[in-house]
Amino acid sequence: MSSSTGSVDAVTVARLHQLYGRQSHLIDGGDAAGWAQTFTDDGEFHSPSYPEPVAGTDALIAFAERFHTRARAANEVHRHVMTNVVIDEVRDGAATVRAYLQIVATSIGGDSRLVRMTTLTDRVVPVGDRWRIARRDIRRDDAA
Amino acid sequence: MSSSTGSVDAVTVARLHQLYGRQSHLIDGGDAAGWAQTFTDDGEFHSPSYPEPVAGTDALIAFAERFHTRARAANEVHRHVMTNVVIDEVRDGAATVRAYLQIVATSIGGDSRLVRMTTLTDRVVPVGDRWRIARRDIRRDDAA
Amino acid sequence: MSSSTGSVDAVTVARLHQLYGRQSHLIDGGDAAGWAQTFTDDGEFHSPSYPEPVAGTDALIAFAERFHTRARAANEVHRHVMTNVVIDEVRDGAATVRAYLQIVATSIGGDSRLVRMTTLTDRVVPVGDRWRIARRDIRRDDAA
Repeated sequence: MSSSTGSVDAVTVARLHQLYGRQSHLIDGGDAAGWAQTFTDDGEFHSPSYPEPVAGTDALIAFAERFHTRARAANEVHRHVMTNVVIDEVRDGAATVRAYLQIVATSIGGDSRLVRMTTLTDRVVPVGDRWRIARRDIRRDDAA
Repeated sequence: MSSSTGSVDAVTVARLHQLYGRQSHLIDGGDAAGWAQTFTDDGEFHSPSYPEPVAGTDALIAFAERFHTRARAANEVHRHVMTNVVIDEVRDGAATVRAYLQIVATSIGGDSRLVRMTTLTDRVVPVGDRWRIARRDIRRDDAA
Repeated sequence: MSSSTGSVDAVTVARLHQLYGRQSHLIDGGDAAGWAQTFTDDGEFHSPSYPEPVAGTDALIAFAERFHTRARAANEVHRHVMTNVVIDEVRDGAATVRAYLQIVATSIGGDSRLVRMTTLTDRVVPVGDRWRIARRDIRRDDAA
């Protein structure tokens, strides 16, 4: 067998697993600027849970701050649980990444619950020595 | 330290994470033929949730089609959430892979719920430049 | 791009994903000694769910045995579902690993439920040709 994973090499798989593992810790932990930096400077976030797309670092930071602030205002901790990360073939330097993303909420002193099941499809591109997300599209399972 | 992971090299870990990440997207997204191709041509699927084992590409395709059709008939989206993928030592060219597999169902316009917690034990073998599953055994936690 | 993932190489990512994937199977399957061996000989486990830290192989074995015994006594199967594993920069030979850890319980003949959502922060060190956990700190989301 060759050393490729389909057409994706082991280093790229490792780097992208690191990116997707880390990204949730950033937004859930309140590091809005760190989360925004996982996107490109003009990165776009499209989700039916929000009235319009979020685009660009400043808007992404504000979005992540609102996410964290609202959870705290509700006396809850929210987590983005990422599974089934798969990197599709890299083409023209960009990769498509798909994953399952569950939102799990826990009330302080109370129970944990699965709030929402979604899937994501990302276009990721290399910027310097890092991969960053140029565009994310979220699909909600309850909206299928 | 050597470059091995136990006795499993980093390329094999990456390739198998890709396989297990991708497999759920195939059956959950309705690509029955694609899902069946993650098994060998005479691959076997053994699960206490179904009356008898499923063996061979044609039967695996029909199984995956039924899974997807039944979810849609129930006005639900079903997801196979894969975690704790671990590759045991490769021996005689075959690897044993174990993982946790949660079935999460979401009704359209409704809530998401954890339907079932299971574990899987797979025998995977190299076929050409890909790893494919020769046999899967599912164990349900509610049947322990 | 260089072959590093941030400052973490692909081999280390693969090895640690194997460690974290495997660890849950050990404690959940009742292999208390195997689970204790994922820690260093003087490894420490700190969790607000238990009255005091657990330190050293013998105490870790006893802890894991109690975990498994209590689940069986409750006629339940408990699983440690690990996601969002991320390896922070390796410094002075030690790595920091963070992950999300859900406890999922299933009663025999009954339903599965998310019992608890936690995060972990581990200090892991190389011992011979393996990585082992020198210290684990658990944070419960309901205690934030």
